[in-house]
Amino acid sequence: MSETTAVLDAKEIVVRPAHSESLRESLVAVLGAAHVQTDEREVEAVSRTNLPFRRVPVAAVYPSTAEEVQAVLAVARAHGQPVWVVSKGKNWGYGSKSASYAGGITMILERMNRIHEVNEELGYAVIEPGVTYGQLRAHLEATGSRLWTDSTGSTREGSVLGNALDKGRGVTPYADHFGALCGMEVVLPDGERVVTGGAGEGNRVWAAYKWGLGPYLDGLFAQSNFGVVVKGGIWLMPAPEAFDFAVFEYTAGPECFGSFVDAFRELAFAGDLQARPHLANDFAMSCIVSQYPYDLRGSATCLSPEAMAAWRKRLGVSEWTFGCGVYGSREEVRMRKRRLKRVLGRYGTLRFLKHWNTPGLFGRAFRAAAKLGLRLQGKSPQLLAGLSEAIELFRGVPTDYFSRQVYFMSHDAKPEGDVDPPRDGCGFVWTGPLVPFTGRDAERLLALVKPIYAKHGFDFFVELIVESPRALIMLFGMFFDRNDPRECERARALYEEVQAVARREGYPPYRSSIASSAATMDGDPAMKGLLAKVKGALDPENVLAPGRYGIVAPPR
Amino acid sequence: MSETTAVLDAKEIVVRPAHSESLRESLVAVLGAAHVQTDEREVEAVSRTNLPFRRVPVAAVYPSTAEEVQAVLAVARAHGQPVWVVSKGKNWGYGSKSASYAGGITMILERMNRIHEVNEELGYAVIEPGVTYGQLRAHLEATGSRLWTDSTGSTREGSVLGNALDKGRGVTPYADHFGALCGMEVVLPDGERVVTGGAGEGNRVWAAYKWGLGPYLDGLFAQSNFGVVVKGGIWLMPAPEAFDFAVFEYTAGPECFGSFVDAFRELAFAGDLQARPHLANDFAMSCIVSQYPYDLRGSATCLSPEAMAAWRKRLGVSEWTFGCGVYGSREEVRMRKRRLKRVLGRYGTLRFLKHWNTPGLFGRAFRAAAKLGLRLQGKSPQLLAGLSEAIELFRGVPTDYFSRQVYFMSHDAKPEGDVDPPRDGCGFVWTGPLVPFTGRDAERLLALVKPIYAKHGFDFFVELIVESPRALIMLFGMFFDRNDPRECERARALYEEVQAVARREGYPPYRSSIASSAATMDGDPAMKGLLAKVKGALDPENVLAPGRYGIVAPPR
Repeated sequence: MSETTAVLDAKEIVVRPAHSESLRESLVAVLGAAHVQTDEREVEAVSRTNLPFRRVPVAAVYPSTAEEVQAVLAVARAHGQPVWVVSKGKNWGYGSKSASYAGGITMILERMNRIHEVNEELGYAVIEPGVTYGQLRAHLEATGSRLWTDSTGSTREGSVLGNALDKGRGVTPYADHFGALCGMEVVLPDGERVVTGGAGEGNRVWAAYKWGLGPYLDGLFAQSNFGVVVKGGIWLMPAPEAFDFAVFEYTAGPECFGSFVDAFRELAFAGDLQARPHLANDFAMSCIVSQYPYDLRGSATCLSPEAMAAWRKRLGVSEWTFGCGVYGSREEVRMRKRRLKRVLGRYGTLRFLKHWNTPGLFGRAFRAAAKLGLRLQGKSPQLLAGLSEAIELFRGVPTDYFSRQVYFMSHDAKPEGDVDPPRDGCGFVWTGPLVPFTGRDAERLLALVKPIYAKHGFDFFVELIVESPRALIMLFGMFFDRNDPRECERARALYEEVQAVARREGYPPYRSSIASSAATMDGDPAMKGLLAKVKGALDPENVLAPGRYGIVAPPR
Repeated sequence: MSETTAVLDAKEIVVRPAHSESLRESLVAVLGAAHVQTDEREVEAVSRTNLPFRRVPVAAVYPSTAEEVQAVLAVARAHGQPVWVVSKGKNWGYGSKSASYAGGITMILERMNRIHEVNEELGYAVIEPGVTYGQLRAHLEATGSRLWTDSTGSTREGSVLGNALDKGRGVTPYADHFGALCGMEVVLPDGERVVTGGAGEGNRVWAAYKWGLGPYLDGLFAQSNFGVVVKGGIWLMPAPEAFDFAVFEYTAGPECFGSFVDAFRELAFAGDLQARPHLANDFAMSCIVSQYPYDLRGSATCLSPEAMAAWRKRLGVSEWTFGCGVYGSREEVRMRKRRLKRVLGRYGTLRFLKHWNTPGLFGRAFRAAAKLGLRLQGKSPQLLAGLSEAIELFRGVPTDYFSRQVYFMSHDAKPEGDVDPPRDGCGFVWTGPLVPFTGRDAERLLALVKPIYAKHGFDFFVELIVESPRALIMLFGMFFDRNDPRECERARALYEEVQAVARREGYPPYRSSIASSAATMDGDPAMKGLLAKVKGALDPENVLAPGRYGIVAPPR
């Protein structure tokens, strides 16, 4: 067909209407009725997000094989409908399963959940996009593997490949999920299937050597719309001989914060900081462990500095906190702990709490003593409740514990199980600008963004995520009432201003949400033009997620 | 213009003849006569290689700015001549400055040698493609930088960016040169200029955060022909507090070699092996330190096993040897040394020789004692002569010492200075198949390739290069008389058979030489098709190095 399926006007992709009945028939013919949703209520539920933004598709489909992915693309082409692809769609706060445009087909790969191989010697797994952190970890444990997953702190149900393709993060030494991705099998928009690595199917280093032969193409399929990754290799960390867990609380004055950030960087360069922790501010830490203190807020839209101080005191939370794993041989762990203590001790309190999770009598005794000590230092029971999950997360064990945090404003309590923030109407959105890992840059962006929160009347939620020794992700969270259109509007204004200011100052986000995806490349016409050329070559009809990350084929 | 400048027939790119005089005039108009070579003797000298393969261009040009690169591309397009690009062209044994086809323009970027920035805090430099290892190191030393370069073992004169774009390797913890590349400025074949990273010019994390925003495109410009990288960021390692140097000699029997390789991998996984050493076989080690023993060979074309054993004994060389740096705080270096010794001691002799390079009385005393000890153990003076450079190389100090090795057959002695193997007619070619880092795979490929050398009558030269904990590069070297056509033919037959066998068995090379570049993707039609589509979009007229790594735009 010659007609383009989507066009980009100044601001948005406009999808032409589908002939729903014949589209449904074609999709059912290739997938079976059980795996096609076109009912209005179904597609509404599928497309729910936590953002002040969502778009409803015409159909949601659930292929189970690469062949079915190819068949869906063929149907989409024939019907002139674009296909938005998610693996599990658990990227809460970035868009979940919603496209960035209205209409079209949403393809959810959750049924493609086979674990093809776990290589114990070389430390990798070959998996499909529906494989979750929880599933992979359970598989490794059941088979007695020596290998650890890394996991996001978000949910056990997240897709390992999906998160990696979105350049998501974990917290262990294998936190760089895209960096740990090695070898892909991809269905291209025209239905062709290609294996990356430059040496075809029989390539024995496909999942062992990252850069392949010839140009390194895996990067083309991250944060983009050039193909559907149907299989991939993910590197796994051999369990270290020893492990410990540190909790740091910043107690120095604000005048020391910049030099603390610089010292933190040097620990990462030296290898003493092996994990990739999140340094959470007081508000971020408090809402992980508690519900929103409406009693302290009064009639304002956010906590006053005094109210925040009172909440902090109530919970025993510091201005800045992080937890962090320590890994290696027994002697290496001892050495790293000494060195962390020497540097971080200058800025606050560092405690090692591995034995919190030790079973048996010794563990019970340790917990009792530590609890007593910490309570005497003003730490609330809530603050200690999540410790066990935090420790496990730094061993790569996925958990839903921390994502319960997003219920802290919209609900009376955090759920005990079955965490599903889009279904439950929690309103929040993330933006994570990258800054050079210097005290100067960190303080600069904090100083720019904090007043924007105050101006819009929002509580200031920020986590400094160690991306590498060279960069920090400054993750800003914004929480609001998803059911109140005015609140949505306020959140959207805050979100857009924070993004705009960060980008203007040279701090681009590490990923885009669906609310800002189409505009991602607007500040860089040369790059946008290059991407359009590649898109035009691989997907001239804009079948695959047009506009995702600003990538769209030009009209023909 | 609508005519394609190059076409791919079954085996080769055929470049249409140039109107030399008008081409020269156009090139001189943009670069000046001093920076254009079209004289037959000049282009002959430029295109010399060490391979049994080379192709002579019509012109060689030396732009000094990105604008001049753009101007040369415009001239090339206007004259229907393709442009082969090298930075310094010091990739001896892979092709030097020669294209993989005859004719066209060779563009040499050696005059683009500005160091734009060295970021001490974040550990990177922003440089142009003409910047050499030697130049960058000297700059760091002159400015009192805390940062180290990593360097190939080949030559001080190699291009830092050029080597990284070819996925070349060093030996320190920053050995993965493409991995250390972060942020690029690229001139596309149509003359457009683009900055990678997805956030345009003002991006403050351009050289600090590798994956950028949106698809990661830097990989597109490695081992390919999609653009000319005119500037790039390269990560540099902060000098560690302490350093030591280990030499390992394998003394266990051949039946232990597989388990030794597996133990070696586990040291890399655990972080005890921090460097990326080359494990050299007896022949490789011997020709680094000596000249070819024609007296031992007699009338054969290669050494018999007995002759090789005699040469080994004469020099005091073991069957397998590697040198390796140890890095970190003083306590970390002590710990790593203990752990290396514990594991490697089972398979051979491990000596720590840092003080070999210590100045002053202590160093002199150490050297005297060590020399005496090593001579008593049968080590020749030659074997010890290169130790000082080996130690420095593992501190990232570039040297021409080891590349002198390639003179071991063709000349009476290794040169004292001014190493230039293509000029001096040394005949050699490398191929480096990747194998999974297991004893099984290493032994398998050795067992496959060694008989091929014997069949063709060549001495077996191999180095096992630690690429990562998951992969080894098995670097095979082939040496021959470059001036004897029959020798060239023999070498070419060996080269092709080794490559074919390795690829058939699933071990692709980590890079292609110009002799095999055009056929790189022949075994993978789906990938070749994908690359052709991208090439067609970015360079429909095949202006830039058509056929490089098998990438060519389809006829229009």
